[in-house]
Amino acid sequence: MRILGLDPGLRHTGWGVVEAAGSRLRFLAAGTVHSRDRDPLAARLDQIYRGLVQVIGRWRPDAVAVEETVVNRNAGSSLKLGHARGVVLLAAAHGGTPVAEYGSMEVKRAVTGTGHAEKVQVAMMVKVLLPGCDAAGGDATDALAVAVCHAHHAQSRRALAAVVA
Amino acid sequence: MRILGLDPGLRHTGWGVVEAAGSRLRFLAAGTVHSRDRDPLAARLDQIYRGLVQVIGRWRPDAVAVEETVVNRNAGSSLKLGHARGVVLLAAAHGGTPVAEYGSMEVKRAVTGTGHAEKVQVAMMVKVLLPGCDAAGGDATDALAVAVCHAHHAQSRRALAAVVA
Repeated sequence: MRILGLDPGLRHTGWGVVEAAGSRLRFLAAGTVHSRDRDPLAARLDQIYRGLVQVIGRWRPDAVAVEETVVNRNAGSSLKLGHARGVVLLAAAHGGTPVAEYGSMEVKRAVTGTGHAEKVQVAMMVKVLLPGCDAAGGDATDALAVAVCHAHHAQSRRALAAVVA
Repeated sequence: MRILGLDPGLRHTGWGVVEAAGSRLRFLAAGTVHSRDRDPLAARLDQIYRGLVQVIGRWRPDAVAVEETVVNRNAGSSLKLGHARGVVLLAAAHGGTPVAEYGSMEVKRAVTGTGHAEKVQVAMMVKVLLPGCDAAGGDATDALAVAVCHAHHAQSRRALAAVVA
């Protein structure tokens, strides 16, 4: 199963693709889609959308996993982030694949074993779990962590289904 | 000039189309795009996007005007609204028309003469300014108010350009 993890942001949206076979994970690719600061909001959202449509077309994931946003105390930044996240979810929906959402603590727990891990611990564990990973930048690494989280959950669901059957 | 006004919301997104010839305004159409509460977020955003793409394809506006969102004290609702607004701006950008944004006070002032008008006053003035307007529901009326606001601003810009020339 090929999983695309996404970490939405208006300036930088991280993406990472992981191949999951049972409990084995393999790094395929990761990167960041940027939007140009000086452009109007609608144009920036279109830059994010087009970038992700390209990534989805290139990697054809079986599932897309998006990080749920920690609601900021600042309602203004939440609104801004919401714009980007809406477009990211739309691009995923237009890719025709199911979209799963995971909370930030859930992602940290899946990758490091604790929901209260620091950002650097998450980044380090992503490199350990995905040998050969050359993700540059925190957003791409965070996106890979979301993909790993989805892989773990998908495996648990399969194991549970097997027990029930 | 044909103007499409939009009032974004996750459950209901209002839209209204106005034809502006100089200072004369004519009501063309208005309505609301709904998303289904029980559906996953990505699917709901797609419902909004597709609904607006249909409206834009049917009415082919020369300009799109979107209400700037009053940032809610609740960061959670701001995030939710941001999702819808991002998709609304994207649909407008994909329509290939320039997108303008107006603050809520600016819209009220353009329609009623005061930035502190009540919702009912705005609705009443929209009916006065756009004879024959049959907009049902507050979201469609709010969208028409945004279109009227853009028409006023466009006219002022033209008048100013004429003076400068």
